[in-house]
Amino acid sequence: MTGRLAAQFAFLMEADKLKHVLRATTLADGSRRENSGEHSWHLALYALVLADQAAPGVNIDRVIRMLILHDLVEIDVGDVPIHSAGGTAHGSAATSAAESRAAERIFGLLPAEIGTDLRGLWQEFEAAETPDAVFAKALDRVQPVMHNLVSGGGTWHEYDVTADQMTARIGTRIARGAPRLWDHVRDRLRAYFPDI
Amino acid sequence: MTGRLAAQFAFLMEADKLKHVLRATTLADGSRRENSGEHSWHLALYALVLADQAAPGVNIDRVIRMLILHDLVEIDVGDVPIHSAGGTAHGSAATSAAESRAAERIFGLLPAEIGTDLRGLWQEFEAAETPDAVFAKALDRVQPVMHNLVSGGGTWHEYDVTADQMTARIGTRIARGAPRLWDHVRDRLRAYFPDI
Repeated sequence: MTGRLAAQFAFLMEADKLKHVLRATTLADGSRRENSGEHSWHLALYALVLADQAAPGVNIDRVIRMLILHDLVEIDVGDVPIHSAGGTAHGSAATSAAESRAAERIFGLLPAEIGTDLRGLWQEFEAAETPDAVFAKALDRVQPVMHNLVSGGGTWHEYDVTADQMTARIGTRIARGAPRLWDHVRDRLRAYFPDI
Repeated sequence: MTGRLAAQFAFLMEADKLKHVLRATTLADGSRRENSGEHSWHLALYALVLADQAAPGVNIDRVIRMLILHDLVEIDVGDVPIHSAGGTAHGSAATSAAESRAAERIFGLLPAEIGTDLRGLWQEFEAAETPDAVFAKALDRVQPVMHNLVSGGGTWHEYDVTADQMTARIGTRIARGAPRLWDHVRDRLRAYFPDI
């Protein structure tokens, strides 16, 4: 019992490090970069508030659980910005392998059956095939766009993002999980990307 | 539809301000104060990982929803440290009234039926009477204690906290919602409070 609790707390203390991982996106007011802990909280709130945008059959509580966990691997791997390129590009085989090793280490801190359960949820999110994961991924794309929209397009300039890249990297993912959200976001994006 | 989405996003943008509210507690490594956004994320993770500590019948998904929302009123009221005293003391009538006004304003940004639902969850958390809320409150007390334990008792010194105060303000609340967690935490607290 005490060994089990000690393992649960070891994981929770390790998870605290996610508050040190800085993302490419700033807070909505542009005052500083967002960290992946507070980002994960904000996404869980997105799921709660935008549940009516999910496809029929999506289980919002599973979506929330996924979003709470989805970035924990960044404790080892760091945040890989979606508009970055090169050897550590978002979605590259090298990044995916590093994230799998991180998941093994971090979820491995937990008592076995909890670790297996949570790691399975993380893998489901990464695979982006189930309706729950598809919706979770859509929200993960929407939130930074909203911050860039209200803070003057900050990191889009920094990364020289084009309209085609926005559609390919962001739009298709949002449209797949939450099509009406993409309609709304695309309308607002025209201020920055007239051809989108 | 667009008016509805605009209201949902107005709320989500307002919620972003919770990342600016600093708590009395530091991160686990003591490097800086924790903000209430990342704290809310960490607590949701606590609920996910410590679900086996909840009383039978507790709905962990409702607990997670409460924890995601529980601090939003701090956007208007600020964090009221549990060991503070005076006119803005934790749990005082003045603080409760200010928090109710904040809840009305903040949840009032949402489409009515979502706002009513989420505000009801927040009120249930605050009232701390249902099994779900009692467990959520217990976790809200455990997390800062863990950070103080691993970072050398930081804010307990600062606030001159006694063993009796720890039991009254922290212990009874944890013991009510998660008695075995309090046994574990109390054992560890003896390094700082020998008489606890």
